[in-house]
Amino acid sequence: MRIALLGGTGDIGEGLALRWAHDTDHTIVIGSRNEEKAQQRAEDYRETLDERDKSYDIEGTRNAAATEGADVVVVSVPPEYATDTVGAVTDALDDDAVLVSPAVRMNRDGAGFHYDQPELGSVAEEIAAVAPEQIPVVGAFQNVAAGALTNLDGDLSADIVVTGDDDEAKQTVTHLAEEIVGIRALDGGPLATSALVESVTPLLINLAMNNDGMHDLGVRFQ
Amino acid sequence: MRIALLGGTGDIGEGLALRWAHDTDHTIVIGSRNEEKAQQRAEDYRETLDERDKSYDIEGTRNAAATEGADVVVVSVPPEYATDTVGAVTDALDDDAVLVSPAVRMNRDGAGFHYDQPELGSVAEEIAAVAPEQIPVVGAFQNVAAGALTNLDGDLSADIVVTGDDDEAKQTVTHLAEEIVGIRALDGGPLATSALVESVTPLLINLAMNNDGMHDLGVRFQ
Repeated sequence: MRIALLGGTGDIGEGLALRWAHDTDHTIVIGSRNEEKAQQRAEDYRETLDERDKSYDIEGTRNAAATEGADVVVVSVPPEYATDTVGAVTDALDDDAVLVSPAVRMNRDGAGFHYDQPELGSVAEEIAAVAPEQIPVVGAFQNVAAGALTNLDGDLSADIVVTGDDDEAKQTVTHLAEEIVGIRALDGGPLATSALVESVTPLLINLAMNNDGMHDLGVRFQ
Repeated sequence: MRIALLGGTGDIGEGLALRWAHDTDHTIVIGSRNEEKAQQRAEDYRETLDERDKSYDIEGTRNAAATEGADVVVVSVPPEYATDTVGAVTDALDDDAVLVSPAVRMNRDGAGFHYDQPELGSVAEEIAAVAPEQIPVVGAFQNVAAGALTNLDGDLSADIVVTGDDDEAKQTVTHLAEEIVGIRALDGGPLATSALVESVTPLLINLAMNNDGMHDLGVRFQ
Protein backbone atom coordinates (compact mmCIF):
# COMPACT_ATOMS: atom_id res chain seq x y z
CA MET A 1 0.00 0.00 0.00
CA ARG A 2 1.13 3.54 -0.73
CA ILE A 3 0.54 6.03 2.11
CA ALA A 4 0.98 9.76 1.57
CA LEU A 5 1.55 11.92 4.63
CA LEU A 6 0.73 15.49 3.61
CA GLY A 7 2.59 17.72 6.02
CA GLY A 8 4.59 14.62 6.85
CA THR A 9 7.42 16.86 8.02
CA GLY A 10 5.44 17.77 11.16
CA ASP A 11 5.34 15.84 14.41
CA ILE A 12 2.33 13.60 13.89
CA GLY A 13 3.42 12.96 10.31
CA GLU A 14 6.87 12.01 11.52
CA GLY A 15 5.41 9.63 14.10
CA LEU A 16 3.12 7.86 11.64
CA ALA A 17 5.87 7.70 9.00
CA LEU A 18 8.37 6.14 11.40
CA ARG A 19 5.90 3.64 12.82
CA TRP A 20 4.51 2.53 9.46
CA ALA A 21 8.00 2.31 7.99
CA HIS A 22 9.17 0.37 11.03
CA ASP A 23 6.23 -2.00 11.46
CA THR A 24 5.06 -2.60 7.86
CA ASP A 25 6.40 -2.79 4.32
CA HIS A 26 4.11 -0.10 2.93
CA THR A 27 5.52 2.71 0.82
CA ILE A 28 5.55 5.95 2.80
CA VAL A 29 5.60 9.24 0.94
CA ILE A 30 6.32 12.38 2.95
CA GLY A 31 4.58 15.38 1.42
CA SER A 32 5.32 19.04 1.97
CA ARG A 33 4.68 22.31 0.17
CA ASN A 34 8.47 22.49 -0.01
CA GLU A 35 9.99 19.60 -1.96
CA GLU A 36 13.46 20.03 -0.52
CA LYS A 37 12.13 19.97 3.03
CA ALA A 38 10.15 16.80 2.28
CA GLN A 39 13.25 15.11 0.89
CA GLN A 40 15.36 16.23 3.85
CA ARG A 41 12.83 14.91 6.37
CA ALA A 42 12.50 11.61 4.51
CA GLU A 43 16.29 11.34 4.74
CA ASP A 44 16.10 12.06 8.50
CA TYR A 45 13.51 9.30 8.94
CA ARG A 46 15.62 6.88 6.90
CA GLU A 47 18.59 7.60 9.17
CA THR A 48 16.47 6.93 12.25
CA LEU A 49 15.38 3.59 10.79
CA ASP A 50 18.91 2.71 9.60
CA GLU A 51 20.00 2.81 13.23
CA ARG A 52 17.53 0.00 13.87
CA ASP A 53 18.53 -2.20 10.91
CA LYS A 54 15.01 -2.05 9.53
CA SER A 55 14.20 -2.13 5.84
CA TYR A 56 11.88 0.66 4.76
CA ASP A 57 10.48 2.51 1.81
CA ILE A 58 10.27 6.24 2.50
CA GLU A 59 10.55 9.08 0.05
CA GLY A 60 9.80 12.80 0.18
CA THR A 61 8.24 15.09 -2.40
CA ARG A 62 5.69 17.88 -2.85
CA ASN A 63 2.17 17.28 -1.49
CA ALA A 64 0.54 16.88 -4.92
CA ALA A 65 3.20 14.45 -6.13
CA ALA A 66 2.92 12.52 -2.86
CA THR A 67 -0.83 12.23 -3.39
CA GLU A 68 -0.53 10.70 -6.88
CA GLY A 69 -1.09 6.97 -6.71
CA ALA A 70 -1.55 6.96 -2.93
CA ASP A 71 -4.14 4.55 -1.53
CA VAL A 72 -4.36 6.51 1.71
CA VAL A 73 -3.67 10.24 2.08
CA VAL A 74 -3.22 11.48 5.65
CA VAL A 75 -3.87 15.21 6.04
CA SER A 76 -1.29 15.64 8.80
CA VAL A 77 -1.01 19.40 8.49
CA PRO A 78 -1.99 21.95 11.15
CA PRO A 79 -5.82 22.16 11.19
CA GLU A 80 -5.93 25.69 9.78
CA TYR A 81 -4.25 24.43 6.59
CA ALA A 82 -6.26 21.20 6.25
CA THR A 83 -8.85 22.34 3.72
CA ASP A 84 -6.40 24.38 1.61
CA THR A 85 -4.04 21.42 1.53
CA VAL A 86 -6.79 19.06 0.37
CA GLY A 87 -7.91 21.60 -2.22
CA ALA A 88 -4.36 21.82 -3.57
CA VAL A 89 -4.07 18.04 -4.09
CA THR A 90 -7.60 17.30 -5.32
CA ASP A 91 -6.54 16.82 -8.94
CA ALA A 92 -3.84 14.38 -7.88
CA LEU A 93 -6.14 12.14 -5.82
CA ASP A 94 -6.72 8.63 -7.13
CA ASP A 95 -10.39 7.79 -7.63
CA ASP A 96 -10.19 5.13 -4.91
CA ALA A 97 -8.03 7.07 -2.46
CA VAL A 98 -9.03 7.54 1.17
CA LEU A 99 -8.42 10.81 3.03
CA VAL A 100 -7.54 10.57 6.73
CA SER A 101 -8.05 13.46 9.15
CA PRO A 102 -5.86 13.40 12.31
CA ALA A 103 -5.87 17.15 13.08
CA VAL A 104 -7.66 18.98 15.91
CA ARG A 105 -8.46 22.67 16.30
CA MET A 106 -7.61 23.87 19.81
CA ASN A 107 -7.16 27.12 21.60
CA ARG A 108 -5.67 27.99 24.94
CA ASP A 109 -6.40 30.40 27.75
CA GLY A 110 -5.53 30.66 31.43
CA ALA A 111 -7.61 27.56 32.23
CA GLY A 112 -5.76 25.36 29.76
CA PHE A 113 -6.51 23.97 26.33
CA HIS A 114 -10.01 23.91 24.86
CA TYR A 115 -11.55 22.28 21.82
CA ASP A 116 -12.13 24.89 19.13
CA GLN A 117 -15.00 23.25 17.29
CA PRO A 118 -15.23 24.12 13.58
CA GLU A 119 -18.59 25.35 12.34
CA LEU A 120 -18.94 22.23 10.22
CA GLY A 121 -18.59 20.09 13.35
CA SER A 122 -15.00 18.84 13.12
CA VAL A 123 -11.83 19.11 11.04
CA ALA A 124 -12.80 15.75 9.52
CA GLU A 125 -16.09 17.23 8.29
CA GLU A 126 -14.30 20.36 7.02
CA ILE A 127 -12.10 18.10 4.90
CA ALA A 128 -15.12 16.14 3.68
CA ALA A 129 -16.75 19.41 2.62
CA VAL A 130 -13.89 20.27 0.24
CA ALA A 131 -12.95 16.74 -0.88
CA PRO A 132 -14.34 15.33 -4.15
CA GLU A 133 -17.67 13.64 -3.48
CA GLN A 134 -16.46 10.11 -4.25
CA ILE A 135 -13.43 10.33 -1.93
CA PRO A 136 -14.24 9.03 1.54
CA VAL A 137 -12.88 10.87 4.59
CA VAL A 138 -12.00 9.01 7.77
CA GLY A 139 -11.18 10.58 11.12
CA ALA A 140 -8.34 8.79 12.92
CA PHE A 141 -5.14 9.22 14.96
CA GLN A 142 -6.26 12.40 16.74
CA ASN A 143 -5.62 10.96 20.21
CA VAL A 144 -2.24 9.35 19.85
CA ALA A 145 0.65 11.55 20.99
CA ALA A 146 3.26 12.35 18.36
CA GLY A 147 5.92 11.89 21.03
CA ALA A 148 4.70 8.38 21.76
CA LEU A 149 4.79 7.50 18.05
CA THR A 150 8.22 8.97 17.34
CA ASN A 151 9.85 7.27 20.31
CA LEU A 152 10.44 3.91 18.65
CA ASP A 153 12.06 2.63 21.86
CA GLY A 154 8.81 3.15 23.77
CA ASP A 155 6.10 0.52 23.97
CA LEU A 156 3.04 2.00 22.35
CA SER A 157 -0.31 1.12 23.93
CA ALA A 158 -2.99 3.40 22.62
CA ASP A 159 -6.49 3.33 21.21
CA ILE A 160 -7.47 5.41 18.25
CA VAL A 161 -11.07 6.02 17.23
CA VAL A 162 -12.02 5.71 13.57
CA THR A 163 -15.00 7.69 12.26
CA GLY A 164 -16.42 7.83 8.76
CA ASP A 165 -19.38 7.20 6.50
CA ASP A 166 -17.73 4.66 4.17
CA ASP A 167 -17.31 1.24 5.77
CA GLU A 168 -14.66 0.05 3.34
CA ALA A 169 -12.55 3.15 3.90
CA LYS A 170 -12.89 2.76 7.66
CA GLN A 171 -11.75 -0.86 7.40
CA THR A 172 -8.73 0.17 5.36
CA VAL A 173 -7.71 2.75 7.96
CA THR A 174 -8.49 0.41 10.86
CA HIS A 175 -6.27 -2.27 9.38
CA LEU A 176 -3.49 0.22 8.62
CA ALA A 177 -3.66 1.61 12.15
CA GLU A 178 -3.53 -1.82 13.77
CA GLU A 179 -0.48 -2.75 11.71
CA ILE A 180 1.31 -0.31 14.02
CA VAL A 181 2.26 -2.47 16.98
CA GLY A 182 0.45 -1.30 20.12
CA ILE A 183 -2.40 0.56 18.43
CA ARG A 184 -5.98 -0.63 18.69
CA ALA A 185 -8.51 1.02 16.36
CA LEU A 186 -12.12 1.31 17.53
CA ASP A 187 -15.18 2.24 15.48
CA GLY A 188 -16.52 5.59 16.65
CA GLY A 189 -19.41 5.69 14.18
CA PRO A 190 -20.18 8.10 11.32
CA LEU A 191 -18.06 11.14 10.45
CA ALA A 192 -20.65 13.36 12.16
CA THR A 193 -19.42 12.09 15.53
CA SER A 194 -15.78 13.11 14.90
CA ALA A 195 -16.00 16.14 17.19
CA LEU A 196 -16.13 13.83 20.21
CA VAL A 197 -12.86 12.22 19.17
CA GLU A 198 -11.13 15.47 18.30
CA SER A 199 -12.14 17.00 21.62
CA VAL A 200 -10.26 14.32 23.58
CA THR A 201 -6.95 15.78 22.38
CA PRO A 202 -7.02 19.05 24.40
CA LEU A 203 -8.11 16.98 27.42
CA LEU A 204 -5.00 14.81 27.03
CA ILE A 205 -2.82 17.93 26.93
CA ASN A 206 -4.49 19.39 30.03
CA LEU A 207 -4.02 16.11 31.90
CA ALA A 208 -0.35 16.03 30.96
CA MET A 209 0.04 19.63 32.20
CA ASN A 210 -1.77 19.07 35.49
CA ASN A 211 -0.54 15.65 36.62
CA ASP A 212 3.05 14.89 37.57
CA GLY A 213 4.74 12.20 35.54
CA MET A 214 2.20 12.19 32.73
CA HIS A 215 3.38 13.07 29.23
CA ASP A 216 2.71 11.98 25.65
CA LEU A 217 -0.65 10.79 26.93
CA GLY A 218 -2.95 8.54 24.98
CA VAL A 219 -6.24 6.95 25.82
CA ARG A 220 -7.55 3.42 26.30
CA PHE A 221 -11.25 2.61 26.35
CA GLN A 222 -12.11 -0.37 28.51
CA MET B 1 -17.48 12.02 55.98
CA ARG B 2 -21.11 12.55 55.06
CA ILE B 3 -21.87 12.25 51.34
CA ALA B 4 -25.24 13.28 49.92
CA LEU B 5 -26.24 11.86 46.56
CA LEU B 6 -29.02 14.09 45.22
CA GLY B 7 -30.94 12.00 42.75
CA GLY B 8 -29.23 9.05 44.38
CA THR B 9 -32.07 6.85 43.19
CA GLY B 10 -30.76 7.02 39.59
CA ASP B 11 -28.11 4.83 38.03
CA ILE B 12 -24.96 6.86 38.65
CA GLY B 13 -26.20 7.68 42.16
CA GLU B 14 -26.78 3.99 42.83
CA GLY B 15 -23.31 3.12 41.58
CA LEU B 16 -21.53 5.71 43.71
CA ALA B 17 -23.66 4.87 46.76
CA LEU B 18 -22.90 1.15 46.50
CA ARG B 19 -19.18 1.64 45.90
CA TRP B 20 -18.70 4.19 48.69
CA ALA B 21 -20.77 2.12 51.08
CA HIS B 22 -18.84 -1.00 50.09
CA ASP B 23 -15.32 0.44 50.06
CA THR B 24 -15.42 3.09 52.81
CA ASP B 25 -17.10 3.82 56.14
CA HIS B 26 -18.53 7.17 55.07
CA THR B 27 -22.17 7.98 55.70
CA ILE B 28 -24.12 7.87 52.44
CA VAL B 29 -27.38 9.77 52.18
CA ILE B 30 -29.60 9.07 49.18
CA GLY B 31 -31.60 12.15 48.25
CA SER B 32 -34.71 12.35 46.10
CA ARG B 33 -37.59 14.78 45.57
CA ASN B 34 -39.70 11.88 46.85
CA GLU B 35 -38.82 10.85 50.41
CA GLU B 36 -40.47 7.46 50.16
CA LYS B 37 -38.57 6.63 46.98
CA ALA B 38 -35.28 7.67 48.58
CA GLN B 39 -35.97 5.43 51.57
CA GLN B 40 -36.94 2.52 49.35
CA ARG B 41 -33.81 2.81 47.24
CA ALA B 42 -31.62 3.10 50.34
CA GLU B 43 -33.25 -0.14 51.54
CA ASP B 44 -32.50 -1.75 48.14
CA TYR B 45 -28.85 -0.72 48.41
CA ARG B 46 -28.64 -2.05 51.98
CA GLU B 47 -29.99 -5.42 50.78
CA THR B 48 -27.36 -5.53 48.02
CA LEU B 49 -24.65 -4.86 50.59
CA ASP B 50 -26.11 -7.32 53.13
CA GLU B 51 -25.54 -10.07 50.58
CA ARG B 52 -21.84 -9.26 50.75
CA ASP B 53 -21.55 -9.12 54.56
CA LYS B 54 -20.35 -5.54 54.41
CA SER B 55 -21.08 -2.99 57.10
CA TYR B 56 -22.50 0.23 55.71
CA ASP B 57 -24.20 3.45 56.63
CA ILE B 58 -26.86 4.35 54.04
CA GLU B 59 -30.04 6.26 54.55
CA GLY B 60 -32.60 7.88 52.27
CA THR B 61 -34.49 11.16 52.56
CA ARG B 62 -35.54 14.24 50.61
CA ASN B 63 -32.83 16.16 48.72
CA ALA B 64 -32.80 19.14 51.10
CA ALA B 65 -32.62 16.95 54.20
CA ALA B 66 -29.87 14.88 52.56
CA THR B 67 -27.90 18.07 51.92
CA GLU B 68 -27.99 19.22 55.56
CA GLY B 69 -24.67 18.48 57.22
CA ALA B 70 -23.20 16.84 54.12
CA ASP B 71 -19.51 17.46 53.46
CA VAL B 72 -19.90 16.52 49.80
CA VAL B 73 -23.09 16.87 47.77
CA VAL B 74 -23.14 14.99 44.45
CA VAL B 75 -25.67 16.40 41.98
CA SER B 76 -26.41 13.01 40.41
CA VAL B 77 -29.65 14.05 38.76
CA PRO B 78 -30.31 14.19 35.01
CA PRO B 79 -28.52 17.29 33.62
CA GLU B 80 -31.74 19.16 32.81
CA TYR B 81 -32.62 19.13 36.53
CA ALA B 82 -29.16 19.95 37.86
CA THR B 83 -29.55 23.69 38.41
CA ASP B 84 -33.11 23.45 39.77
CA THR B 85 -31.98 20.73 42.16
CA VAL B 86 -29.10 22.85 43.44
CA GLY B 87 -31.40 25.84 43.75
CA ALA B 88 -33.80 23.79 45.85
CA VAL B 89 -31.13 22.73 48.36
CA THR B 90 -29.13 25.97 48.57
CA ASP B 91 -30.47 26.90 52.00
CA ALA B 92 -29.55 23.47 53.33
CA LEU B 93 -25.92 23.56 52.16
CA ASP B 94 -23.26 23.69 54.85
CA ASP B 95 -20.87 26.63 54.50
CA ASP B 96 -17.99 24.26 53.84
CA ALA B 97 -19.83 21.82 51.60
CA VAL B 98 -18.51 20.84 48.17
CA LEU B 99 -20.81 20.33 45.18
CA VAL B 100 -19.87 17.61 42.70
CA SER B 101 -21.13 17.57 39.10
CA PRO B 102 -21.16 14.16 37.35
CA ALA B 103 -23.90 14.87 34.78
CA VAL B 104 -23.53 15.34 31.02
CA ARG B 105 -25.93 16.86 28.49
CA MET B 106 -26.19 14.69 25.40
CA ASN B 107 -28.43 14.35 22.41
CA ARG B 108 -28.80 11.65 19.81
CA ASP B 109 -29.44 11.49 16.09
CA GLY B 110 -28.89 8.92 13.37
CA ALA B 111 -25.10 9.24 13.69
CA GLY B 112 -25.10 8.42 17.38
CA PHE B 113 -24.73 10.42 20.56
CA HIS B 114 -23.36 13.96 20.61
CA TYR B 115 -22.27 16.30 23.37
CA ASP B 116 -24.92 18.95 23.92
CA GLN B 117 -22.74 21.72 25.29
CA PRO B 118 -24.53 24.11 27.67
CA GLU B 119 -24.20 27.81 26.91
CA LEU B 120 -22.22 28.29 30.10
CA GLY B 121 -19.69 25.73 28.89
CA SER B 122 -20.59 22.63 30.89
CA VAL B 123 -23.08 21.27 33.40
CA ALA B 124 -20.41 21.86 36.06
CA GLU B 125 -20.32 25.56 35.19
CA GLU B 126 -24.13 25.71 35.10
CA ILE B 127 -24.15 24.42 38.67
CA ALA B 128 -21.43 26.90 39.69
CA ALA B 129 -23.57 29.72 38.27
CA VAL B 130 -26.48 28.95 40.62
CA ALA B 131 -24.51 27.76 43.66
CA PRO B 132 -23.74 30.16 46.51
CA GLU B 133 -20.47 31.96 45.81
CA GLN B 134 -18.53 30.37 48.67
CA ILE B 135 -19.50 26.80 47.70
CA PRO B 136 -16.92 25.22 45.39
CA VAL B 137 -18.09 23.09 42.49
CA VAL B 138 -16.04 20.15 41.27
CA GLY B 139 -16.60 18.20 38.06
CA ALA B 140 -16.04 14.46 38.52
CA PHE B 141 -17.32 10.96 37.71
CA GLN B 142 -18.72 11.85 34.25
CA ASN B 143 -16.75 9.10 32.50
CA VAL B 144 -17.33 6.12 34.75
CA ALA B 145 -20.17 3.87 33.63
CA ALA B 146 -22.99 3.39 36.11
CA GLY B 147 -23.10 -0.27 35.13
CA ALA B 148 -19.44 -0.71 36.00
CA LEU B 149 -20.01 0.91 39.42
CA THR B 150 -23.15 -1.03 40.31
CA ASN B 151 -21.64 -4.39 39.40
CA LEU B 152 -19.81 -4.98 42.66
CA ASP B 153 -18.57 -8.34 41.33
CA GLY B 154 -16.71 -6.58 38.52
CA ASP B 155 -13.17 -5.30 38.88
CA LEU B 156 -13.34 -1.57 38.38
CA SER B 157 -10.42 0.01 36.51
CA ALA B 158 -11.31 3.52 35.47
CA ASP B 159 -9.91 7.02 35.48
CA ILE B 160 -12.04 9.98 36.40
CA VAL B 161 -11.02 13.57 35.71
CA VAL B 162 -11.49 16.15 38.44
CA THR B 163 -11.97 19.80 37.45
CA GLY B 164 -12.51 22.82 39.65
CA ASP B 165 -11.24 26.18 40.80
CA ASP B 166 -10.81 25.34 44.52
CA ASP B 167 -7.78 23.15 45.20
CA GLU B 168 -8.97 21.98 48.59
CA ALA B 169 -12.35 20.92 47.21
CA LYS B 170 -10.64 19.09 44.34
CA GLN B 171 -8.41 17.26 46.82
CA THR B 172 -11.42 16.23 48.88
CA VAL B 173 -13.16 14.81 45.80
CA THR B 174 -9.96 13.21 44.49
CA HIS B 175 -9.43 11.43 47.80
CA LEU B 176 -13.05 10.34 47.99
CA ALA B 177 -12.94 9.03 44.42
CA GLU B 178 -9.76 7.07 45.00
CA GLU B 179 -11.23 5.44 48.09
CA ILE B 180 -13.33 3.52 45.58
CA VAL B 181 -11.12 0.56 44.70
CA GLY B 182 -10.10 0.71 41.03
CA ILE B 183 -10.69 4.41 40.46
CA ARG B 184 -7.83 6.78 39.72
CA ALA B 185 -8.63 10.50 39.85
CA LEU B 186 -6.64 12.85 37.61
CA ASP B 187 -6.50 16.64 37.74
CA GLY B 188 -8.11 18.09 34.62
CA GLY B 189 -7.52 21.72 35.56
CA PRO B 190 -9.97 24.56 36.29
CA LEU B 191 -13.76 24.21 36.07
CA ALA B 192 -13.67 26.02 32.71
CA THR B 193 -12.17 22.89 31.14
CA SER B 194 -15.04 20.63 32.26
CA ALA B 195 -16.61 20.47 28.79
CA LEU B 196 -13.70 18.32 27.60
CA VAL B 197 -14.44 15.79 30.32
CA GLU B 198 -18.20 15.82 29.85
CA SER B 199 -17.82 15.33 26.12
CA VAL B 200 -16.00 12.02 26.59
CA THR B 201 -19.24 10.44 27.83
CA PRO B 202 -21.15 10.39 24.51
CA LEU B 203 -17.97 9.05 22.88
CA LEU B 204 -17.96 6.15 25.34
CA ILE B 205 -21.59 5.37 24.48
CA ASN B 206 -20.88 5.51 20.73
CA LEU B 207 -17.91 3.19 21.15
CA ALA B 208 -20.01 0.71 23.12
CA MET B 209 -22.68 0.82 20.38
CA ASN B 210 -20.23 0.37 17.50
CA ASN B 211 -17.78 -2.20 18.82
CA ASP B 212 -18.68 -5.80 19.63
CA GLY B 213 -18.06 -6.87 23.18
CA MET B 214 -17.67 -3.36 24.59
CA HIS B 215 -20.09 -2.22 27.24
CA ASP B 216 -20.03 -0.12 30.41
CA LEU B 217 -16.97 1.55 28.94
CA GLY B 218 -14.66 3.75 30.92
CA VAL B 219 -11.44 5.46 30.05
CA ARG B 220 -7.80 5.21 31.10
CA PHE B 221 -5.25 7.88 30.28
CA GLN B 222 -1.73 6.57 29.85
